[in-house]
Amino acid sequence: MAVDTSLLTRLTGIVGADYVRTDEPTRVTYGTDALKQGHPADVVVWPANTAEVSAIARACHETRTPMVPRGAGTGYTGGAVPSHGGVVISLERMNRILEIDEGSLLAVVEPHVITGDLQDAVEALGLFYPPDPASLRQSVIGGNVAECAGGPRAFKYGVTKQYVLGLEAVLPTGEIIETGGKVVKNVVGYDLTHLLVGSEGTLAIITKVILRLIPKPPVQITMRASFPSVRHAVNAVTLLIRARVIPAALELIDGDSLDAVAQHLQVRSLAPEGTAAILLLEVDGLAEQVIGEADRVEVACRDAGATEFLRALDDASRQELWRVRREISPSLKVITPLKFNHDVVVPKARIPELFDLVDVLRDRYRLRIPCFGHVGDGNIHVNIMVTPGDDDEIRRAHEAEGDLFRGVVALEGSISGEHGIGFAKKKYMPLELSQDEIDLMKRVKAAFDPHGILNPGKMFD
Amino acid sequence: MAVDTSLLTRLTGIVGADYVRTDEPTRVTYGTDALKQGHPADVVVWPANTAEVSAIARACHETRTPMVPRGAGTGYTGGAVPSHGGVVISLERMNRILEIDEGSLLAVVEPHVITGDLQDAVEALGLFYPPDPASLRQSVIGGNVAECAGGPRAFKYGVTKQYVLGLEAVLPTGEIIETGGKVVKNVVGYDLTHLLVGSEGTLAIITKVILRLIPKPPVQITMRASFPSVRHAVNAVTLLIRARVIPAALELIDGDSLDAVAQHLQVRSLAPEGTAAILLLEVDGLAEQVIGEADRVEVACRDAGATEFLRALDDASRQELWRVRREISPSLKVITPLKFNHDVVVPKARIPELFDLVDVLRDRYRLRIPCFGHVGDGNIHVNIMVTPGDDDEIRRAHEAEGDLFRGVVALEGSISGEHGIGFAKKKYMPLELSQDEIDLMKRVKAAFDPHGILNPGKMFD
Repeated sequence: MAVDTSLLTRLTGIVGADYVRTDEPTRVTYGTDALKQGHPADVVVWPANTAEVSAIARACHETRTPMVPRGAGTGYTGGAVPSHGGVVISLERMNRILEIDEGSLLAVVEPHVITGDLQDAVEALGLFYPPDPASLRQSVIGGNVAECAGGPRAFKYGVTKQYVLGLEAVLPTGEIIETGGKVVKNVVGYDLTHLLVGSEGTLAIITKVILRLIPKPPVQITMRASFPSVRHAVNAVTLLIRARVIPAALELIDGDSLDAVAQHLQVRSLAPEGTAAILLLEVDGLAEQVIGEADRVEVACRDAGATEFLRALDDASRQELWRVRREISPSLKVITPLKFNHDVVVPKARIPELFDLVDVLRDRYRLRIPCFGHVGDGNIHVNIMVTPGDDDEIRRAHEAEGDLFRGVVALEGSISGEHGIGFAKKKYMPLELSQDEIDLMKRVKAAFDPHGILNPGKMFD
Repeated sequence: MAVDTSLLTRLTGIVGADYVRTDEPTRVTYGTDALKQGHPADVVVWPANTAEVSAIARACHETRTPMVPRGAGTGYTGGAVPSHGGVVISLERMNRILEIDEGSLLAVVEPHVITGDLQDAVEALGLFYPPDPASLRQSVIGGNVAECAGGPRAFKYGVTKQYVLGLEAVLPTGEIIETGGKVVKNVVGYDLTHLLVGSEGTLAIITKVILRLIPKPPVQITMRASFPSVRHAVNAVTLLIRARVIPAALELIDGDSLDAVAQHLQVRSLAPEGTAAILLLEVDGLAEQVIGEADRVEVACRDAGATEFLRALDDASRQELWRVRREISPSLKVITPLKFNHDVVVPKARIPELFDLVDVLRDRYRLRIPCFGHVGDGNIHVNIMVTPGDDDEIRRAHEAEGDLFRGVVALEGSISGEHGIGFAKKKYMPLELSQDEIDLMKRVKAAFDPHGILNPGKMFD
């Protein structure tokens, strides 16, 4: 226990004895995220409101104690892991939708509102909050904002960043700040809102979020096209862009991933024989518009050599088409129990080169590397499969990972489009950023956190 | 002359004698922007490339000389004015479109590309760069990025911020940094790109911009609806939002502005008798979609009491409808030669309260205050008309301005949605931001500019 008794007493005074815990199961549970490489917290606290968060920050600041804000802990890069111990500030009690304003098209929420719950609430009013990370039934708005979560709909609708109008946040020194506001345009002072989005909980603790909403598109059509190779599927995307169609979703699933899902679901196959890649596509909007768009999608896919094209018009058949996509993550475990799950991104036009690179890595390092993801954004989940205990395979996987990241940067891409850096990808940040750029980011960090106590060890050392 | 001979010699060595000027006409010309309250530069330099900008910054840094980056000088708040003298860095020679990548839907440009020229170039390829500030035929991308320019299309398409994927910039200490890149998703490190957008040239000198493009909507329909009061027009906007239509443009023009345009164009009237407000609306997209949207727009406007509704389908009649909007700024001079031109913004649902506030100010201070603007964004240009030399009127106008800004903040709005702070609105920033927030912004400024030599005296003292 690195947290001394006087701090514990002070924390108890702030949130009450029921909301401070130091037992080992709690410290371990709140010490991990989806990366599965945790470090126990010293103490976990559950503040009820912004004033309590501020008081906790002040206590940590005065005692120079590390503190880590925590949402649902669904991140893939260790962003919520207290890797230096200290106080984990769980925002679970701050879980209310405070306001849905139909007239101004915005919502005000506390950080621990589950993303899917917010979507349900606004859709019931005919409104729409588009960002849809795969974790949307578990992850929370505060975490989505801290990591700038993406998802399939980002191609048409953008990522979390595009929906955050304003924030309330607590600085590591305890001050409460508000950034942005309830307006869609605001050029008063620096845009701290968008500096905080994606800052992985290293600059401030988000305590309130003002989100932009849009009208819900009334009609969706989901489609699936099967192709004899990934290259054919990528060509279809090129033709689609050339036809100036912007689908709401444009997901690619490669043959390895398809095989794993088929095996997991215990079916012989999910697509016609000879399918090495499928595209899942969705168009949405007014009825009169989506039919025309779906037709253009079909033409583009058939021109690119699709061997099968399915169109789902009702909700049940839409869900059936999406099922394959949703089952990929659990299914990959049939290949090996562990994966190095990367979310690289390249300029759209360079996607074929990214797949060429992955092919090279498969051969060079004798690894299974199923790929799937948001091909419209150039954002592909590259899963390097590893068998725990197989040290040689793990070594090869690490080498492949390094080659992948170097290759992506050479393609003018980025090593992370969605998951962030956390501590998992820290050592690769210099591949993409110069020392001058990293030094500047560290000075920005110091402007918020002079003593480096907020979520230390993330992004930088 | 506050710049000493050795610095002049050094600057001449960097850019060549042809591109350093200290004559008074040049110093004065490059010492003003559209605010018309200038301060002469000490010296003006025209670098040819990023390396020269970096060398200039280093020279200014080492001599602690103020420097001010300058685009086309069309800003309304003094952002490009060298209010502390020093070196004006005109980016006029860095005016090339470096790349338009159709496959990746992006463009790479130098800062002094005129916004309208970029639009023409990408539209010729069937692509679209939506941000459309009124100055688009004069202003340049670098300035648009520095100020986060908006425009009528922001309601549907967003402001400049939503289109900037990456930047190259020179720090006030001379280092060249790159932020973001050619990908639409990137969560590696802090989002410095969007911190620089709208930072009014106070953090870094932008030397290259990577812009996201979208497919050009093939069809536009422009409409005009006339109403017996501003309140009726605002009701139409409410009904539109309720009907879930997102027009590409949604501009309101009040009766005072209309009268000024009619007088300026020497016509009896521009709308049916009894018109106190018009809405200009545009829908765009695929043909099959825009007809349906236009129908919904018409229903909403008629339900809200429109006395006339016009629909322009061809380009000539579209331009005719837009003409009134374009002529407002020059026309207001028929009321008085000078205006305090504000760009306040409130949450959409509070627009009626904003107009009530302006009515109160008109009466209380006996002033003409024509209003027009981007009603869909809640962003209204409130023009307080003043007669130069009429000291009493000018005093009343300043009081009205203060009341306006306080009122807007009380309505949960912002004192500037488009024009920024510069030095013109500096004293009002504390109305909207707390001292803690301003102090934090100053620390961020210091992280970029430790000696406060880049565009000093803007936003903060």
